[in-house]
Amino acid sequence: MTTSLSSRRAHVIGLGLIGSSVALALRAVGWTVTGADLDTTIERAALESRVIDATQPRDPDLVVVATPARAVVEVVNALLGSLERSDVIVTDVAGVKGSIVDGVTDPRFLAGHPMAGSELRGLAGARANLFEGCTWVLTPTANTSPVTYGTLHGILREIGANVVAISASDHDRLVAIASHVPHLLAGSLMNEASRVAEQDAVLLQLAAGGFRDMTRVAAGDPSIWPDILFENRLAVTQALDDLETRLHSLRDALVNGDREMVSSSLQSAAIARRQLPGRALNSESLAYLRVKVSDQPGVLASVTMAASELLVNIYDIEIAHGIEGAAGTLLLAIDARQTDLFMEELDRRGFQVVRER
Amino acid sequence: MTTSLSSRRAHVIGLGLIGSSVALALRAVGWTVTGADLDTTIERAALESRVIDATQPRDPDLVVVATPARAVVEVVNALLGSLERSDVIVTDVAGVKGSIVDGVTDPRFLAGHPMAGSELRGLAGARANLFEGCTWVLTPTANTSPVTYGTLHGILREIGANVVAISASDHDRLVAIASHVPHLLAGSLMNEASRVAEQDAVLLQLAAGGFRDMTRVAAGDPSIWPDILFENRLAVTQALDDLETRLHSLRDALVNGDREMVSSSLQSAAIARRQLPGRALNSESLAYLRVKVSDQPGVLASVTMAASELLVNIYDIEIAHGIEGAAGTLLLAIDARQTDLFMEELDRRGFQVVRER
Repeated sequence: MTTSLSSRRAHVIGLGLIGSSVALALRAVGWTVTGADLDTTIERAALESRVIDATQPRDPDLVVVATPARAVVEVVNALLGSLERSDVIVTDVAGVKGSIVDGVTDPRFLAGHPMAGSELRGLAGARANLFEGCTWVLTPTANTSPVTYGTLHGILREIGANVVAISASDHDRLVAIASHVPHLLAGSLMNEASRVAEQDAVLLQLAAGGFRDMTRVAAGDPSIWPDILFENRLAVTQALDDLETRLHSLRDALVNGDREMVSSSLQSAAIARRQLPGRALNSESLAYLRVKVSDQPGVLASVTMAASELLVNIYDIEIAHGIEGAAGTLLLAIDARQTDLFMEELDRRGFQVVRER
Repeated sequence: MTTSLSSRRAHVIGLGLIGSSVALALRAVGWTVTGADLDTTIERAALESRVIDATQPRDPDLVVVATPARAVVEVVNALLGSLERSDVIVTDVAGVKGSIVDGVTDPRFLAGHPMAGSELRGLAGARANLFEGCTWVLTPTANTSPVTYGTLHGILREIGANVVAISASDHDRLVAIASHVPHLLAGSLMNEASRVAEQDAVLLQLAAGGFRDMTRVAAGDPSIWPDILFENRLAVTQALDDLETRLHSLRDALVNGDREMVSSSLQSAAIARRQLPGRALNSESLAYLRVKVSDQPGVLASVTMAASELLVNIYDIEIAHGIEGAAGTLLLAIDARQTDLFMEELDRRGFQVVRER
């Protein structure tokens, strides 16, 4: 930044979860942040909870447009028309990038997408550290100046994000397979099961943990999805077609008795899934433990207390139920270097524990 | 049972996870249990760990065939030929029922499928309470006598299972959509993402929690699946076709700009998923809480200790990460009657907690 630390000023448009978290994160590193929302109730709440310093922009160095995807192009172009400074940087946070990059040619705009979210929505879910360790995609174009890119990159690093630069079309293609198509699959599977369950209510008794895992995202707020799916429809339909081809090959293999094909497909999926990095930045440094537990109050506390006493941080936790049974297995991800220490302590406490990998 | 309690004798063929758990469960309620496995090392281990009383059958009242699905018909028919008693009951535990019911006409056989499993495999995962609260499907046919059904039902109730009777073809159709097709979907999605990631390694950085949830089952042991999928291929291909039709309608709606169709599909999936019963038998009695947590050692212990001290049992736990961030939300399912008590305690400990429903 060419401006001094004390004079850094940002304006955030749209005070939902991401917008208000950006405001908090910038304020935490010394920025003065103004913010606006179409809903004045939200503006007032953001002021009262000190998420923003004021609602009126004050000659900002940075403007973050955090509106729904569909509104970004219009908001950004209107804004750029009203901003006279040549060194202002305008960015957005929408989950689809191609149509936005195509719709804004002003070199002061550099589009982005933080891969962060929360189970909580809106201002209520906002927190200053939402972007710590998160992947923040920037999609520079031929118009983007190195200074603009370098400045925005530096600001995002400062609030803890890992910045990745890819083209808007690559971004859209990748999120189609990593996020948008999975959402459609989860929804379709849930709707199909729901149809079957109308005739056979017992189906729901047969739906085990795997089914619950696969349909979990379908329970989320459906209102944001049509916008994202339509903005990215080319990449989504392509990814759907690719997936359909795979499912069709499996179907044919089942019909034709091609056991080898089904086996090798499931085998390669198992290998790939086990290699999928966990959420920790460096998944090789994690150890995965399986601990048999009963469903009594206190069992979970005993395991987690053991971790706490040894200063072992649990990076991930999951209960893998004996499907519908009264007990299950606790899956834990911990720092691999602490494995022996922690396993010995769990053993001492009478738990049966196995290291997975 | 017409035999007295002291003389109840069972024989278990196949001492994997389910077979050895059946042995332990029956022994726990007073049965004498013999057991056999093709692998004599496993037989010896089962004897040594007192999972079975002996390896040679002793005029059993009940025989449980717990071999892989493909072997069941042959094993059961050979066995029935060698058993002279007319009141012996033979059952199996395979995940597919149609081909088995078709292959065995002897009225002394009644097929079954316990919807139980474990993250651990084989004898190592065996436990006497594996079936407590689990759904155990029985698939009676026109050949099945009420006495046979009633006796087996009573035994399974005794080891804690909830017995459900449905036809073999209904069973196969329902597990196709609840379990087999989800497995193929998870595998295909993982393989497709893996293909894309070979060209763009950054994809894995964009794969968030939803993707991990949807592909988790693909990481399981792939060796048992071809057997199950081929035994159930008619129902699986039908369910795949039904799902494909749904995905295709969504694809067409995206191409044709039919926002209403996409919205209503996602909306109905969200409603259905939220109504999906949890693993507890009576999900209405559970409350779902979201607790914001940091990734420091001790945070999880603090939450679970609070539960333990108040004798609040945590039925389900999950960390919903801020995708790749350093903090996240803990999702907890507890007894709804304890909600206020527990929320007050968490609040007292400085946690931000929200009740979901």
